[in-house]
Amino acid sequence: MAGSTFGNIFRVTTWGESHGPALGAVIDGCPAGLPLSEEDIQKYLNRRKPGTSALTTSRSESDTVEILSGVYEGVTTGCPISLVIRNTSQHSKDYGNLKTTYRPGHADLCFEEKYGIRDHRGGGRSSGRETAARVAAGAIAAKALESLGIKIHAVTSSIGNVTVPAKLLEGLNNDLLQTAYSLHSVMPDKALDEAATELITKCREAKDSVGGSIYCTVTGMPIGIGEPVFDKLDATLSHAIFSIGAVKAVEIGDGIQVSEMNGSENNDKMRSTPGGEVAFETNHAGGILGGMSDSAPIKIKAYFKPTPSIYRSQETILKKENGSFENTELTIEGRHDPVIVPRAVVVVECMTAITVFDALLQNMGSKMEYLKKIY
Amino acid sequence: MAGSTFGNIFRVTTWGESHGPALGAVIDGCPAGLPLSEEDIQKYLNRRKPGTSALTTSRSESDTVEILSGVYEGVTTGCPISLVIRNTSQHSKDYGNLKTTYRPGHADLCFEEKYGIRDHRGGGRSSGRETAARVAAGAIAAKALESLGIKIHAVTSSIGNVTVPAKLLEGLNNDLLQTAYSLHSVMPDKALDEAATELITKCREAKDSVGGSIYCTVTGMPIGIGEPVFDKLDATLSHAIFSIGAVKAVEIGDGIQVSEMNGSENNDKMRSTPGGEVAFETNHAGGILGGMSDSAPIKIKAYFKPTPSIYRSQETILKKENGSFENTELTIEGRHDPVIVPRAVVVVECMTAITVFDALLQNMGSKMEYLKKIY
Amino acid sequence: MAGSTFGNIFRVTTWGESHGPALGAVIDGCPAGLPLSEEDIQKYLNRRKPGTSALTTSRSESDTVEILSGVYEGVTTGCPISLVIRNTSQHSKDYGNLKTTYRPGHADLCFEEKYGIRDHRGGGRSSGRETAARVAAGAIAAKALESLGIKIHAVTSSIGNVTVPAKLLEGLNNDLLQTAYSLHSVMPDKALDEAATELITKCREAKDSVGGSIYCTVTGMPIGIGEPVFDKLDATLSHAIFSIGAVKAVEIGDGIQVSEMNGSENNDKMRSTPGGEVAFETNHAGGILGGMSDSAPIKIKAYFKPTPSIYRSQETILKKENGSFENTELTIEGRHDPVIVPRAVVVVECMTAITVFDALLQNMGSKMEYLKKIY
Amino acid sequence: MAGSTFGNIFRVTTWGESHGPALGAVIDGCPAGLPLSEEDIQKYLNRRKPGTSALTTSRSESDTVEILSGVYEGVTTGCPISLVIRNTSQHSKDYGNLKTTYRPGHADLCFEEKYGIRDHRGGGRSSGRETAARVAAGAIAAKALESLGIKIHAVTSSIGNVTVPAKLLEGLNNDLLQTAYSLHSVMPDKALDEAATELITKCREAKDSVGGSIYCTVTGMPIGIGEPVFDKLDATLSHAIFSIGAVKAVEIGDGIQVSEMNGSENNDKMRSTPGGEVAFETNHAGGILGGMSDSAPIKIKAYFKPTPSIYRSQETILKKENGSFENTELTIEGRHDPVIVPRAVVVVECMTAITVFDALLQNMGSKMEYLKKIY
Repeated sequence: MAGSTFGNIFRVTTWGESHGPALGAVIDGCPAGLPLSEEDIQKYLNRRKPGTSALTTSRSESDTVEILSGVYEGVTTGCPISLVIRNTSQHSKDYGNLKTTYRPGHADLCFEEKYGIRDHRGGGRSSGRETAARVAAGAIAAKALESLGIKIHAVTSSIGNVTVPAKLLEGLNNDLLQTAYSLHSVMPDKALDEAATELITKCREAKDSVGGSIYCTVTGMPIGIGEPVFDKLDATLSHAIFSIGAVKAVEIGDGIQVSEMNGSENNDKMRSTPGGEVAFETNHAGGILGGMSDSAPIKIKAYFKPTPSIYRSQETILKKENGSFENTELTIEGRHDPVIVPRAVVVVECMTAITVFDALLQNMGSKMEYLKKIY
Repeated sequence: MAGSTFGNIFRVTTWGESHGPALGAVIDGCPAGLPLSEEDIQKYLNRRKPGTSALTTSRSESDTVEILSGVYEGVTTGCPISLVIRNTSQHSKDYGNLKTTYRPGHADLCFEEKYGIRDHRGGGRSSGRETAARVAAGAIAAKALESLGIKIHAVTSSIGNVTVPAKLLEGLNNDLLQTAYSLHSVMPDKALDEAATELITKCREAKDSVGGSIYCTVTGMPIGIGEPVFDKLDATLSHAIFSIGAVKAVEIGDGIQVSEMNGSENNDKMRSTPGGEVAFETNHAGGILGGMSDSAPIKIKAYFKPTPSIYRSQETILKKENGSFENTELTIEGRHDPVIVPRAVVVVECMTAITVFDALLQNMGSKMEYLKKIY
Repeated sequence: MAGSTFGNIFRVTTWGESHGPALGAVIDGCPAGLPLSEEDIQKYLNRRKPGTSALTTSRSESDTVEILSGVYEGVTTGCPISLVIRNTSQHSKDYGNLKTTYRPGHADLCFEEKYGIRDHRGGGRSSGRETAARVAAGAIAAKALESLGIKIHAVTSSIGNVTVPAKLLEGLNNDLLQTAYSLHSVMPDKALDEAATELITKCREAKDSVGGSIYCTVTGMPIGIGEPVFDKLDATLSHAIFSIGAVKAVEIGDGIQVSEMNGSENNDKMRSTPGGEVAFETNHAGGILGGMSDSAPIKIKAYFKPTPSIYRSQETILKKENGSFENTELTIEGRHDPVIVPRAVVVVECMTAITVFDALLQNMGSKMEYLKKIY
Repeated sequence: MAGSTFGNIFRVTTWGESHGPALGAVIDGCPAGLPLSEEDIQKYLNRRKPGTSALTTSRSESDTVEILSGVYEGVTTGCPISLVIRNTSQHSKDYGNLKTTYRPGHADLCFEEKYGIRDHRGGGRSSGRETAARVAAGAIAAKALESLGIKIHAVTSSIGNVTVPAKLLEGLNNDLLQTAYSLHSVMPDKALDEAATELITKCREAKDSVGGSIYCTVTGMPIGIGEPVFDKLDATLSHAIFSIGAVKAVEIGDGIQVSEMNGSENNDKMRSTPGGEVAFETNHAGGILGGMSDSAPIKIKAYFKPTPSIYRSQETILKKENGSFENTELTIEGRHDPVIVPRAVVVVECMTAITVFDALLQNMGSKMEYLKKIY
């Protein structure tokens, strides 16, 4: 159980290294009867593709996905779906100096000590490229959710100190999303995008990098999705989001702020609509109560550290043949984004989709009434 | 898979409702040969016990644990350990008015919609009492970890706007821990404890509640614990912590702050010690790189919302016999803490212990070299 | 993952040793809305109770079950159901001589080597008493299945060379079942019961024991239950049945016989009924094709070894203080059935119920059409 | 959880359909440091390859495996190993008539009812071709086991009524294995192979098929491998073996015979060797006691039904557009083995290897003593 599988019913297993021949995902437990084509997946992959702007790495992968199983005549069959993405732009020789030297802020040292061996080229299994497989799998979950009226959207909420105001995030609509998707920073505002671009350009010039954050929302959730104890929906979402490299904090709803609030202020008032349905006057909880969806939009925020690969020379250590460590200096080559966030937006969206769809499937056995509808 | 089990190898299953006859845990996968007595567990349970101060609920449970299996002549046998804690102080009639009315900020509505039935007394399965079972299980993990040189400690880091300075948290030593454990707020400083007590007292008088945060640290970790993709150590820790009711944010290391930092600042410099070992000059990462422990202390911060049960009258909804909702007003009775945090400190510690011990067990199969040492 | 949990959605965890204070089960994932009382469970437990005849051990346990959680006002709530059965008739001193001596045909040696410690009293965790917890859990699955029109019944099919003819087993109806349940051997025929009783009596007099077999059938299955690759319904059923101590063979349908048959003979012919439904002319397959139920009755046969605890003196080994082994002679005391089979009938039935109900729950996510019926 | 993954620590996920572009496996949890090449895997795949004799289907697949991840410079890295085998010899048009007609003895009807859609070409996911992926994964487990001194070997034990005598199976040595591997029937005896060949030839001429059985043995096991309750080693082995299509019975040790034996006869006597080690005088138990290995060779027997695809015309049903069934007649085309057994020998071996290696990995956390050796 080396943890390359995520989900309980809709189970996603990813495989592949940055500089191996390919990477991919196997999705087991996708219900039959979902129309699915390579284009459905490709459009998500295109959103995380490198090389689309000056803000991102110059590694230019086509990231073309191939469906090898589980789809017949354009529809899922209930059998495992195998997706493969060939690596085509590996520059392995860029990494020659990393064989025994450990990059600061990276998993190199931990890999070496855990396994006694590592594929040091481009981060190997810990490379951001692994997320391409997650995006491919998440595109399927997102499509299934959409057919049930559930939508997931994410945008960049900050880069360095350039921050999208909370109001703008809460009012996220189709127009703002289109704006965000058309801008390099994936922020839903042109002026902010310009400020962020300027910041990133400065970072690049200073051979440095910068962090940021991503806001993600889920709308259209039925009430009661998520399991009330260990597999609370916020707990599994946070597991999913923290499993993306470089995430250092996750907030649900008002997050950290609630720790300074009073109960009378933080409790979201429930009111009956004229039609006798539930409505919430506020949404501090971010759509989750007791680990289950409460029908209000789910609100997640993920905070990313700055890219650890920077181009200035850094002091670090290397491993000598006798197994002990020695100080050294390192200048990282290869191709790296000065900020991870814009390309990670679709990864957050996809990990959220996988988690939510899995929770919906798990909930199918919550009451005998549901079984009697089927059998 | 209703999510009442946590862990992959060291598996903890909890059961029980607030006002049922008992609650408990079954731990499967605890290695044989660990000395274990009821006292080992009881001392952890005593730390979360209600009724020990004016700051907490007046519900007074003895919370006495009984070991029903898995321990023979004071030592674990490798068989599942069943722990039972009898409920002795239920006042179920306090909850009569909650049968059809949903408390704001609680799981009531979600439970009703998910299952079509709920034990409404005292929060039922979603009650904070469920955490007693986690603490009992976590005490076992903590004892096993200690025998391997790994220590876990948590304290209150804030209550409302009364905040323990970061410096004090980073310098947490035995003396400060003893101070914290002797104070109602579980803060490692007398003056802060007084300020927090004053704040809580005001909340109680105002029939209100307040949130706060908890800081937890793990020392003595070997390098490389945690799985590099979906089951990163930070991801499973965050899953564990978010599964505690009322948690709304989790940070690892410098958390949210890193999103505004530069890479050159955030990368923790590795240096070789005179003996050829690894040392880190800083610990922004909080002891985890690429989802694996890096030998530096692990630093976790969990943020809690204010107790949703407050004694002032609140507007909310009830469910009518025809299934539609209607507005109503509610005054909650029962016994409730105006702040959850001080009693949750040991819960955070125990969920961390369970997660870390499970990760150590999972790591046993990481390399053939380990198998050859055993077989 | 020490394997004390069975099932993927309907998850049964058992705990407890033969001579500890109690044993029990926690069932997580039982759907809400199933009427359930202690009597529902007790009537299954009574069927495996020892001490009801000269054929069985004289250990006389009341085997009274207590429901500690997950049921509210007589209905399951969707929360974990905790069941406890107190041990009341332990004669631990009978086992004093087994502390260092290993009984032939028992798990003693393996336990000692695996864990380095064992509760040697009455087989500890490996005792047949552990199956009481399975029966308690299985009673719940059986009740849920019955509400969906699925029925499971088992009888003794042989004891030693006294064998129930295949015809009688295939024609099992309510009358025959009532006959079986009223007889010590649990065979559906008085004359065969007498022959079996005579055989067992002879065994007991000879301080020996004998094996036998159990036939189990499931009727009312929808088509398509079971997962087509690793979790084929026959594979999980066989896992379930082989997990009962003393089982040495499992057959589905015609079992071993098919290995000598031709395809033209073994293929069950499908025919359309006048109403356009499927019917099978024969049932060599035992109701399962490609790992999925085909609507015909499922037929399982489990073969049990003779009770390894026999009262005649046996040559065996003991472990010396230095860890090496030495020959010795052993006379087993305690109370033991000369044949396990009659009491195991209800255990086979219950493990089958758990497996089948879990498969039905897993199948809830097989097609998008089902999700659209619920959400 | 559609059941395409097997194992708890060493986890094998297979994917792919008979007539899709490829099939494969992802192995997560393989320890790092195992030398591994494509040749290691290919030699196992070659043993199940079709088209090597008159006894098998004329479908001629090269079955060339490609390693896409998890191996670096000839050694496993601890990361998931992705294996792909391209399909090159599909004759999909052979299957045109199966779109709405259900083959007797096949999963067709069950697939259709479960998923509402199926890839009908060549059995789709239920095709025997799926086992190529298992063999590829099992080759890795077998190599790891061999490096720990554990060996697994299987041969054909019967085809129709041509049966290898028990004596010959128990005395299986390298010479007999070489004989078996050189013969079409994979029986360890030339005369028996000739008799079997004659029988199969007659079957083919009669447009019919025949069943058979496979014997598998594991030597070199340490004591105590397997988990004592639900995940007994015999239970997981039987799960593994029954998950191979066409298996209808599994025996461990003396299997069905023990149901007619007495305890005094069936109990295997333990004796101390001159060196103070354990030895068994007999091995009726087949190397497993109480679900754990006892150091004696493990003995498994699997019984297979005759190939359901036969070339004579068969009466069956088809599904009409309105969803109801109608009688029809069917002549199956495509390429099919008249007996499955010889090609399944290596599949049984490989499923056994996966199960045993997973059990060894699970056992790594059985006692604190082991953890202290590593940490």
